[in-house]
Amino acid sequence: MNTFGDKWSFTSFGESHGKAIGGVLDGVPAGLRIDLEMIRGELLRRKGVTGDGLPVTGVSPRAVREPDEVEWLSGVIEIKNYELGITNERVSELVTLGTPIAFIIRNKDARPEDYEWLKYTYRVGHADKVYEQKYGLRDWRGGGRASARETAARVVAGCIAKQELQAKGIAIEARLVQVGAETDETKFAETIAAYQREGDSIGGIIECRIQGLPAGVGEPIFNKLQAELAFAVMSINACKGFEYGTGFGGVTESGSAINGISGGIAGGISDGTEVMFRCVFKPTPSTPKAGVKGRHDACVATRAVPVVEAMTALTLVNLLNC
Amino acid sequence: MNTFGDKWSFTSFGESHGKAIGGVLDGVPAGLRIDLEMIRGELLRRKGVTGDGLPVTGVSPRAVREPDEVEWLSGVIEIKNYELGITNERVSELVTLGTPIAFIIRNKDARPEDYEWLKYTYRVGHADKVYEQKYGLRDWRGGGRASARETAARVVAGCIAKQELQAKGIAIEARLVQVGAETDETKFAETIAAYQREGDSIGGIIECRIQGLPAGVGEPIFNKLQAELAFAVMSINACKGFEYGTGFGGVTESGSAINGISGGIAGGISDGTEVMFRCVFKPTPSTPKAGVKGRHDACVATRAVPVVEAMTALTLVNLLNC
Amino acid sequence: MNTFGDKWSFTSFGESHGKAIGGVLDGVPAGLRIDLEMIRGELLRRKGVTGDGLPVTGVSPRAVREPDEVEWLSGVIEIKNYELGITNERVSELVTLGTPIAFIIRNKDARPEDYEWLKYTYRVGHADKVYEQKYGLRDWRGGGRASARETAARVVAGCIAKQELQAKGIAIEARLVQVGAETDETKFAETIAAYQREGDSIGGIIECRIQGLPAGVGEPIFNKLQAELAFAVMSINACKGFEYGTGFGGVTESGSAINGISGGIAGGISDGTEVMFRCVFKPTPSTPKAGVKGRHDACVATRAVPVVEAMTALTLVNLLNC
Amino acid sequence: MNTFGDKWSFTSFGESHGKAIGGVLDGVPAGLRIDLEMIRGELLRRKGVTGDGLPVTGVSPRAVREPDEVEWLSGVIEIKNYELGITNERVSELVTLGTPIAFIIRNKDARPEDYEWLKYTYRVGHADKVYEQKYGLRDWRGGGRASARETAARVVAGCIAKQELQAKGIAIEARLVQVGAETDETKFAETIAAYQREGDSIGGIIECRIQGLPAGVGEPIFNKLQAELAFAVMSINACKGFEYGTGFGGVTESGSAINGISGGIAGGISDGTEVMFRCVFKPTPSTPKAGVKGRHDACVATRAVPVVEAMTALTLVNLLNC
Repeated sequence: MNTFGDKWSFTSFGESHGKAIGGVLDGVPAGLRIDLEMIRGELLRRKGVTGDGLPVTGVSPRAVREPDEVEWLSGVIEIKNYELGITNERVSELVTLGTPIAFIIRNKDARPEDYEWLKYTYRVGHADKVYEQKYGLRDWRGGGRASARETAARVVAGCIAKQELQAKGIAIEARLVQVGAETDETKFAETIAAYQREGDSIGGIIECRIQGLPAGVGEPIFNKLQAELAFAVMSINACKGFEYGTGFGGVTESGSAINGISGGIAGGISDGTEVMFRCVFKPTPSTPKAGVKGRHDACVATRAVPVVEAMTALTLVNLLNC
Repeated sequence: MNTFGDKWSFTSFGESHGKAIGGVLDGVPAGLRIDLEMIRGELLRRKGVTGDGLPVTGVSPRAVREPDEVEWLSGVIEIKNYELGITNERVSELVTLGTPIAFIIRNKDARPEDYEWLKYTYRVGHADKVYEQKYGLRDWRGGGRASARETAARVVAGCIAKQELQAKGIAIEARLVQVGAETDETKFAETIAAYQREGDSIGGIIECRIQGLPAGVGEPIFNKLQAELAFAVMSINACKGFEYGTGFGGVTESGSAINGISGGIAGGISDGTEVMFRCVFKPTPSTPKAGVKGRHDACVATRAVPVVEAMTALTLVNLLNC
Repeated sequence: MNTFGDKWSFTSFGESHGKAIGGVLDGVPAGLRIDLEMIRGELLRRKGVTGDGLPVTGVSPRAVREPDEVEWLSGVIEIKNYELGITNERVSELVTLGTPIAFIIRNKDARPEDYEWLKYTYRVGHADKVYEQKYGLRDWRGGGRASARETAARVVAGCIAKQELQAKGIAIEARLVQVGAETDETKFAETIAAYQREGDSIGGIIECRIQGLPAGVGEPIFNKLQAELAFAVMSINACKGFEYGTGFGGVTESGSAINGISGGIAGGISDGTEVMFRCVFKPTPSTPKAGVKGRHDACVATRAVPVVEAMTALTLVNLLNC
Repeated sequence: MNTFGDKWSFTSFGESHGKAIGGVLDGVPAGLRIDLEMIRGELLRRKGVTGDGLPVTGVSPRAVREPDEVEWLSGVIEIKNYELGITNERVSELVTLGTPIAFIIRNKDARPEDYEWLKYTYRVGHADKVYEQKYGLRDWRGGGRASARETAARVVAGCIAKQELQAKGIAIEARLVQVGAETDETKFAETIAAYQREGDSIGGIIECRIQGLPAGVGEPIFNKLQAELAFAVMSINACKGFEYGTGFGGVTESGSAINGISGGIAGGISDGTEVMFRCVFKPTPSTPKAGVKGRHDACVATRAVPVVEAMTALTLVNLLNC
């Protein structure tokens, strides 16, 4: 239900306005050094904050205020550098123990009173109503589990997966390739700013490329590589579609024309070439223009980029351990 | 690996040119009557055969020769109608026992010698090479597990799932909505025939609608309804993309414009309205025009329609039992 | 790996001398009120502390010093009594949200320096050496994951399961029925004290009875009720055997003599009568008499009683949700 | 439900008096040669038939009549010896393809009329009644799924697992060590014959030893090696208890006395020494003396020996692939 993967098994927990969000990542081999700098960087990227600590265009100012500090509860041990035979300025490092890695990010900005009005209201285009239908009650404070804040835990777990992949020579890179009708990357900020000024929002398409994946990853029948990637990516809030290789656009091409274009996958199994897929994110529906108060992003696709990478990384470490 | 779902757990087995293909469907409640007529009809639909026993446009003549007869090995008992309190012309009926339902479809048309040349050859655009990379050896006879014939087992299991859904008032209907650039259904046969004449093939888009699904189906984080459907559908051979609700086309719409369009799902959970998704199938790459001998379909999307329904049905019975 | 159950899925984490131990319990329905008093009581029972806060005979004094305070991180909401329509002295209550319940117990008594000598030593009869063989490195501080402290998280999760079972009229009761050769309950403290005086330890047998379990729980082939219970109980540290119904003692009885004795289970499925099983706990091998310094219990079986109940409760909620 | 293991995943199907019993074994690597002679031998051993084709003492004559012939449906390919570079008298051999291995054993001796009287009767000590309580209906023909015949499929799958283990230098050997109160192996046949003459039955204890298991197998918390073995063995019909190492008998020993006796497992993980466990099988309760007509075994423990080995083998291949 709240667990992804069975080899590197990631369990996510936490309400956006409860005490903390967090996760447990089980199945990570012992002896992996955790790159805390990479994690800090990816969490900033997810928040839509630049290296200078400023929000990128279209991102809600709330992002800047949340520190996103990771507290490591288990599964790691601080090992002094001299024990590792490394000589540098840092005193110690976190190394995995092979036991479940639990971590939390406390919710410092929790102001439930901002959301008190939501207690008896359902926001259109949000999950408020279906949650109440499913569970009988809900944590009305800021969306609870449905909040995009939950993706911070995915990013932390995804970073650990990425480090394992890097060690195997596998690199994942996602980037925004379309905002509204705009496909020129240099004009994305401008396009987003225009929607923001009108109290509105706009969708985007993210393209993700996987380099260095060996041939043979994926299972031939149900657990095809493309099915696993689609599952992972479609589980991200606001994602409305997934395609790979020739995708939807390829419908107008003949078999003889597309012969040889694999998207890096044949019969559900990686073929050793670059894997490429694309996914689309809808604009947030709760905007001032739609009559919904509160903080919102003008283009959630911007902040989804590192989440797409994280889910891709978690998918791959699970398939590689098969 | 070859199992789909954990409540209604379906395991598929069989090579296209081995003794038989088949499946085991575990988790089906006891007392469900199996509609053998529906299964026969859906298997014909999957083969691309009309009610008159003739292939529909673009379907390889091989389809007509394969009888696709289901042999039920376990999990069902013939119950005489008088025991069930039913009076009609049929003498007996198959009723599920609550134990695993195993069935096979023998491969009557197995002619491995047709494929002997493949033993030392990899077909471009097929899984031949990656299978050998993954497993070290492969069943070269007609694609082995990668053959589309495997989907017949999915259709049988999907029919049993559909019957359970029907009893709950849930209906699934998929149909071809685009062939190449053509979106006028009355012109699909013509379009396909044109590609067939040139020894080529063409892709298609299938749209699937789910009626009667109650609110509350799907899990909020990873096992979102859309993620489960994407996983199921992307596991079908030749499927290159999945989208729901506003999909890829919605990228150019503003948040205020799409507000209220849910595609039947909010926050990963069904909202009680019609669920609609679309998926795209690429044309088969092994065509005479591409220099590949052998039997092929001019538009595999035609035959994928009942498979999309079957995988959707299997997804839903698994989520409804949660 | 560190997860038990797939319906009420419990993930345990934490090293005994790290920051915290804890768990995530996923799959608990929304609206269950958590009985914090019961949890406090069961944690004391697990520590071997009486109602007066004193250790019971044979329990290491370390137990008294550890406060075992549960911090609830997610999955619950404080609901004021007037919202629940209850009028009593307590101001508020924890109610489950249907989302993953994460909790931690901080390790207040962590004194790694006590265990520094273990860094380069393997204790006989402990898991120190196999951990290093399995993982390449280990958390040498007090046994890490192998510590019995991990069972505190099981007890917390088990209490929530017990409350669900109570609401269904199902009661679990385990008790010590043998210590060494002694089967007279009134002499257990005396027997344990005798071993303690000699710096030694002794084993014990626990009997567990389940009342009110409806007929039909358990699966007929692999997931038989007795197999699931054996799995759960044998996963507790120091447990060396499990038996139910006629057990090992029944080997000398004829079929006609035992006819009718079911132990509450037939063909792997509960038959609606009381279920009874027994399990044996070996004495801790690291005692002063065996030349091992440090704190130890003279009879670990004493403290295992609530853990047996907790694992039984977790087993049953998982099977009942099938 | 009817599946064991997640790496080498074995699904069992079939009613004892339906068309066939069988199984699907998924996850077996490609290129393993299947030793059909070993499978034939183990199936005979399970039936209680000697090399001369005669039933061993106490075994029902029905056993001799059932041919237990395995039909391989998928997952294997016949490879001619010259392709394998082997020169001997046999023409070909079965080699695994890495795809699911499906096999069936047809029920040739099906005589449902023998059991017609059971349609409206529940046998005491059998699962007849609980099945009907659980499923609402049941296959009354000879116990259906609850029949011991189902274990033939486990033996076939277990043989394939054993071959993989042999290749890794791991050997499993189970044997009967006690029948009733008798522990002298030379007197077992005599003891069983005495019960048989009286139309009665008697229980037995089986001891199983695993040689060559490397250190590190098993998981430290829930999936301890002993918990997995207990689960596997307790899933065999008529098994009433499991113990390892010092077992139940060790309850009277002090910690200092048993220090060093591990039973091959420490902290849930194999320690590289021989693993030893024991399990007890109750006598069948449906005997002429208890007033139950029909065919029965005087000591089911005799025939359980290869089933214990099979379940042990399936457990180990699953844990070794972790």
